[in-house]
Amino acid sequence: MSNAPALPVHPAAKDCDPLTLGWMQGSPPPADKRIRFQDGSGYHFPQLRWSFAHYRQMVATVSVPRGLKAVTPLPQAARNLPDIRYTPMTGAGTCTWADMMEATYTDALLVMHQGEVLFEHFGGVMSPLQPHIAMSVSKSFMGLMAACLVADGVLDESQRVDHYLPELAGSGFADATVRQVMDMTTGIDYTENYADPQAEIWNHMRAGGVMPCPPGYSGPSNFYDYLKTVRKLGTHGERFTYRTANTDVLGWIVARASGQSTAQMLSQRIWQPMGAELDAYYTVDPIGTAFAGGGLNTGLRDLARFGELVRNHGLVGDQQVLPAAALADTFGGADPARFAANGPVTLPGWSYRNMWWVSHNAHGAIMARGVHGQNIYIDPKAEMVIARYASHPVAANVANDVHTLPAYHAMALALLG
Amino acid sequence: MSNAPALPVHPAAKDCDPLTLGWMQGSPPPADKRIRFQDGSGYHFPQLRWSFAHYRQMVATVSVPRGLKAVTPLPQAARNLPDIRYTPMTGAGTCTWADMMEATYTDALLVMHQGEVLFEHFGGVMSPLQPHIAMSVSKSFMGLMAACLVADGVLDESQRVDHYLPELAGSGFADATVRQVMDMTTGIDYTENYADPQAEIWNHMRAGGVMPCPPGYSGPSNFYDYLKTVRKLGTHGERFTYRTANTDVLGWIVARASGQSTAQMLSQRIWQPMGAELDAYYTVDPIGTAFAGGGLNTGLRDLARFGELVRNHGLVGDQQVLPAAALADTFGGADPARFAANGPVTLPGWSYRNMWWVSHNAHGAIMARGVHGQNIYIDPKAEMVIARYASHPVAANVANDVHTLPAYHAMALALLG
Repeated sequence: MSNAPALPVHPAAKDCDPLTLGWMQGSPPPADKRIRFQDGSGYHFPQLRWSFAHYRQMVATVSVPRGLKAVTPLPQAARNLPDIRYTPMTGAGTCTWADMMEATYTDALLVMHQGEVLFEHFGGVMSPLQPHIAMSVSKSFMGLMAACLVADGVLDESQRVDHYLPELAGSGFADATVRQVMDMTTGIDYTENYADPQAEIWNHMRAGGVMPCPPGYSGPSNFYDYLKTVRKLGTHGERFTYRTANTDVLGWIVARASGQSTAQMLSQRIWQPMGAELDAYYTVDPIGTAFAGGGLNTGLRDLARFGELVRNHGLVGDQQVLPAAALADTFGGADPARFAANGPVTLPGWSYRNMWWVSHNAHGAIMARGVHGQNIYIDPKAEMVIARYASHPVAANVANDVHTLPAYHAMALALLG
Repeated sequence: MSNAPALPVHPAAKDCDPLTLGWMQGSPPPADKRIRFQDGSGYHFPQLRWSFAHYRQMVATVSVPRGLKAVTPLPQAARNLPDIRYTPMTGAGTCTWADMMEATYTDALLVMHQGEVLFEHFGGVMSPLQPHIAMSVSKSFMGLMAACLVADGVLDESQRVDHYLPELAGSGFADATVRQVMDMTTGIDYTENYADPQAEIWNHMRAGGVMPCPPGYSGPSNFYDYLKTVRKLGTHGERFTYRTANTDVLGWIVARASGQSTAQMLSQRIWQPMGAELDAYYTVDPIGTAFAGGGLNTGLRDLARFGELVRNHGLVGDQQVLPAAALADTFGGADPARFAANGPVTLPGWSYRNMWWVSHNAHGAIMARGVHGQNIYIDPKAEMVIARYASHPVAANVANDVHTLPAYHAMALALLG
């Protein structure tokens, strides 16, 4: 695939294990092995191989309690992981599952088939007790919660943003509909090119306490104040453009419509009913607002449990935990024609609905995706869920997709036998 | 008792419920109801009635995982709470249990008798799922973990501090013994008068990321670097003086001797084996060091479980989780003569051992205490454990003691019938 970027030149994953490199080990860690929020080193490679599993040690956070219910078991499958081969999108040779894991800097990976654990791996600083940041996989949680409120009749997707949030009347979001926010078809002046230091995403993250502010910073100091500054550019509803600001607007709308914070809602609607085994958490801005667009941290197994909940259209056992209509709407996707112009080159024919990436392939697969390789991949036909945490040196997911997408699909085909 | 301070003039507890006052409620909270780490408002009264249960929303933290084991149940007692009366140390009239709770700004309170829950209360922003900061109750966890390492032969209490920590060779701690650190009989130039803005405790807390630094602050920026600056004053071993710096030195010694961080050790030695129901957490400094002296946050029920573990000399059921020798040593206390000069006026005849307050009364009661009213009170004779979280406007515990100590003892007597 000639449009796919060349793979970056970085140390191989096996040569930058954070424990082996000694990041943040010792009491105290040696000066050259310290990772500090204020100097931004948590975002550097290879330091991020440690920090993605230790966000709460760098920033303020809010808990998503699992509650006191028993954990929903994840039974072990009797069969072994099929021994698959795939050809990466770059067209270079034939790779194994292990090649995919290594090539994409996998921190932890879980494959479920028919509700059972087929494969589970924890590497580097990961363990079953260690949450990892989900990055923009967080968006799919927020989008699904909003879709549930729509299905419940609590949220009207056809209303304008300023109906729910008069505070945004002067912003570019004012006359967008809730649905346009949910599907990221708003027309706003906001770029999210992670390779561009001037992109609006960075001010968004500084305001939200996710990244350190430079000396003398006098911009907005919370998510709400930042979102008010976003201007309109273009026409709402015309086409998909991936912009994190939409998710934080959606989080605000959902909080206003429901009276619950993002963390409260995730705990009560999903984390507690699905029988999570670890508390999850969000990073928060200086006034306690969860970073709906990218601040969720979970254990790997709970990410898989959530994938199963989605695959089962909201059922946990025989209990309908989430409205089936919200899941049907998500799996149905949006109009791929509105996606084509701005979608990643690795996702031809896909669409974006309720903040999920919808493949429209023959298996009906959908995906949650976060920078540096965070994934939930759900293949309904193969009854397969893949949950994955990673610390790829490249933010953009096309660097992972060239391996992960063909590997995931090959695994699905093998499971269908 | 004429030496006891007059009760402070503040709004009554019932008139400053943080939910009723609206602190941090809404999306966003109104500007005059926001509590931000950077402006220090989390330490103001009445804001602290919210922030003591929400530390992680203000600062970086590290988890103390409960693990994946089943929760140890806290069975309900069949009997009711005895209807006690007590006379406060101030000598003014006769008070009820409810009077004590109100007078001391109780956030949450649990009374256990013979291993069963006799009384449980969650007020304000507290709930069974909501951790609260334990303040200096944290010290008793650290002291007990150190005592366990001594009992295990991993830590030599007669060694000098600089044996374990060459980094402190130039500090006032260098020639103190580990035991002197454990019992806070070191002679160092460090004051902990919370009413004095120049007291060393404040620089200690700024270095540790527990309090905001003033503009232009150029002092130490982690616990280790702060502890190196503490000078000697007086003679080690002569008398008890309450100084938080000792606990963070002990945390450093324990980490060095064991190879485990404070949070790892608490999780593996206590939190997981005792069957905690919530993860606990510590606030951390900018390089990830747990604040051993005051940064632990737990659920109330887990504080009670820990109290039961101590009361039972390290047993959970029939399993010896902690070495019995460490508990026997703690209950035995230290020399009250070394305590008398500097102990709180409300604790006559007490001593301080392994960072526990030891009453030497006829019931053999011991106590863990934290500013603003955090307590674990263990009465072995009455088979009673009281776990308590509070947000008293006055930091010093004498303001609580005048009510809590006579109330706790009256409850113990009533339970003994």
